[in-house]
Amino acid sequence: LLSPVLTSSITEDLEVLVFLPKNNSYLFSRARVMPAILYAQSRLSEESGLYSGFHFNIHFENSDCVNDAVLTLVDRSCQQKPDLILGPVCEYEAAAVIRLASHWNIPVVSAGALAAGFSNKKGEYSHLTRIAPSYVKMAETFSAMFEHFTWKSALLVYEDDKEERNCFFTMEGIYHLMSDFNLKSYAISVEERLDTDSVLQNIHDTEVVIMCMGADRIREIMLAAHKRRFTSGNYMFFNVELFNASSYGNGSWKRGDKYDSDARQAYASLNTVTLLRTVKPEFENFSMEMKKSSEKAGLHDCKDCESVNMFVEGFHDAMLLYAIALHEAMKHGYTKSNGTEITARMWNRTFEGIAGQVSMDVNGDRNGDFSLMSMTDVEAGTYEVVANYFGENGTFQLLPAFSTEHFTLREKHIPHAEMA
Amino acid sequence: LLSPVLTSSITEDLEVLVFLPKNNSYLFSRARVMPAILYAQSRLSEESGLYSGFHFNIHFENSDCVNDAVLTLVDRSCQQKPDLILGPVCEYEAAAVIRLASHWNIPVVSAGALAAGFSNKKGEYSHLTRIAPSYVKMAETFSAMFEHFTWKSALLVYEDDKEERNCFFTMEGIYHLMSDFNLKSYAISVEERLDTDSVLQNIHDTEVVIMCMGADRIREIMLAAHKRRFTSGNYMFFNVELFNASSYGNGSWKRGDKYDSDARQAYASLNTVTLLRTVKPEFENFSMEMKKSSEKAGLHDCKDCESVNMFVEGFHDAMLLYAIALHEAMKHGYTKSNGTEITARMWNRTFEGIAGQVSMDVNGDRNGDFSLMSMTDVEAGTYEVVANYFGENGTFQLLPAFSTEHFTLREKHIPHAEMA
Repeated sequence: LLSPVLTSSITEDLEVLVFLPKNNSYLFSRARVMPAILYAQSRLSEESGLYSGFHFNIHFENSDCVNDAVLTLVDRSCQQKPDLILGPVCEYEAAAVIRLASHWNIPVVSAGALAAGFSNKKGEYSHLTRIAPSYVKMAETFSAMFEHFTWKSALLVYEDDKEERNCFFTMEGIYHLMSDFNLKSYAISVEERLDTDSVLQNIHDTEVVIMCMGADRIREIMLAAHKRRFTSGNYMFFNVELFNASSYGNGSWKRGDKYDSDARQAYASLNTVTLLRTVKPEFENFSMEMKKSSEKAGLHDCKDCESVNMFVEGFHDAMLLYAIALHEAMKHGYTKSNGTEITARMWNRTFEGIAGQVSMDVNGDRNGDFSLMSMTDVEAGTYEVVANYFGENGTFQLLPAFSTEHFTLREKHIPHAEMA
Repeated sequence: LLSPVLTSSITEDLEVLVFLPKNNSYLFSRARVMPAILYAQSRLSEESGLYSGFHFNIHFENSDCVNDAVLTLVDRSCQQKPDLILGPVCEYEAAAVIRLASHWNIPVVSAGALAAGFSNKKGEYSHLTRIAPSYVKMAETFSAMFEHFTWKSALLVYEDDKEERNCFFTMEGIYHLMSDFNLKSYAISVEERLDTDSVLQNIHDTEVVIMCMGADRIREIMLAAHKRRFTSGNYMFFNVELFNASSYGNGSWKRGDKYDSDARQAYASLNTVTLLRTVKPEFENFSMEMKKSSEKAGLHDCKDCESVNMFVEGFHDAMLLYAIALHEAMKHGYTKSNGTEITARMWNRTFEGIAGQVSMDVNGDRNGDFSLMSMTDVEAGTYEVVANYFGENGTFQLLPAFSTEHFTLREKHIPHAEMA
């Protein structure tokens, strides 16, 4: 019944619905990501290619990071349901779209929806494939470090905007994965004044402090910690900086104010976990094209214009991965309407993305590689990558710049007795 | 253009979609609430009545308290959108349905969706009318008491199941309304062992303890508080018991175990805030009919079989309120498709519900009346209503059984110095 067809004869028209914000303030705004999707479309349609029979009809719809996407999806779908949905990125908006898409048997590929909750693919998120490493994947890096250095406790300090909640979800990923460790959390509202005393009081009985918040607040906390002599090796400080890796490390301690010198010394104790970005020659052309598009769109205000960010890369690769899986499914006699089959073929596979190899785990989530950066020259205040974590095989690789001493706690803490 | 039509000529076919759980374990399960909706339908269709021209075509659809309702709504609505939606009750499921209904200009009336977030009718919940008093309405009772007795601080202790989250949302209502007071919260997971020591430690620097949890845990806490002599008038204890008022007060302290005597003495310090239920003669017939239906449906396992609960009453009245508003709108020349107009006419009005007068505020939320119960005979361990709060005019009425001494804090607490 399911007769294999000749590769050359596979042709299909495909309706793709892309949910990205029109608002330019996001790293994944339409103006930034659309060129990457069109770049992938153009490459896939090259006449000699395996996928030239696929004709992608791509509709870009707005995502407001609240509810726009699901309402648009519902309104459009009475006439014709899409074959593929790309995005949304924002967690709450994505949840509604993915639920409905899963119910309708439509594959969703997103470079967002990174929160721990989306890992559950048995139920409402069955048709979600995550083409960027989730927060839980990032947390594996900490888990590996904690094992390696035999740390047991951490305080998670994060800023919560109660809207996109990137830092909340980042920390939740750590909480989710590292439940065997002794973790406490400390949330700071975006509107509230930062009370560094209160933060530092909470550090007392932990070994490690992991922070996720804006650069200015990180600096405030590090300066306060330095003043209290918490930066002399008795605590380990980390911050997580996932989405603008390239702009970090050039001296985030430096502000040209009177605290620069103290900040530089304080930051000698601060280590940064960030995405490991690999680049292959082919990527240069893509990167150039993306820069040109950004300039054309007048995106001068962005933090990350100098490098292609993970969202741009991810949504490009989403098109490739879908084409590979659909092609394979159709070769086996399935149609584009079989979202379950196509989704399954996107999972548990490795393919060549625009920047390098992309490895998807059995649960349809991309394995992540992360770098650990430390200040290696305190005089100059410069950073280097000292270790890498490779998600596909779970290895933690120490680089020449790595110093064991730097990661050794000077003084072990005896937890305070509980207040009676 | 909008020509008024004669009252007698108003006829219309109306599609009503009702979302209630098939699962019998809820107070608002279909088997319990359906008879009330059908009772209302039958009364409305009485030939002599003002609304006899309305022909309600009522479809009962399942609500699983997760996502079923919105998926059903979407799937059904490509053919024909409903004119009115009743339910869902559960907060998360209701949110998705109300958002979509508001987007489609369809009125939603629910005896649930009681969380504070739904008060915001400017945006995504614009078409929601709440026919039962929300948690914020309940919180007005505490606010009035705190003003009256000049209390300033409270600890909110609640059980959180992370699913329906009734007690979480109950406490959130208090938090939302009473932000000017000094409130702390203490959550207990349903799975966790109850650590009464830890709860009582947190009471230290507050005057009032407000609890929302199962009767057994309330008893555990009260027994522990009694043992520590926290029940001698130096703290005020409250619990909130919204949905099975009638089953409370008959001696929830009594278990036939060796702790009964202690529990009875401890409960002398426990006051209960509960819904004030009024009953008019007409209600008796309704109540009898509901009981018959419950028995027919074999609902023997329910906690609240003896009285018609707020959900049953609310969904009955929802039909009346909609009929009144629609009739008025049509008299003014609007059609059933004008959800905004019909919704507006359900708000800021008072009408005769099945149990008594129902008052809707300008924001489309029902004003609530609540009772305060206290143990008035410690020897017998019996309770009485000692005060009532009337939401429509915000008055707090003391009854003869009320004792000022009972509500006077014996000893004012000096807050502990913050740990340095």
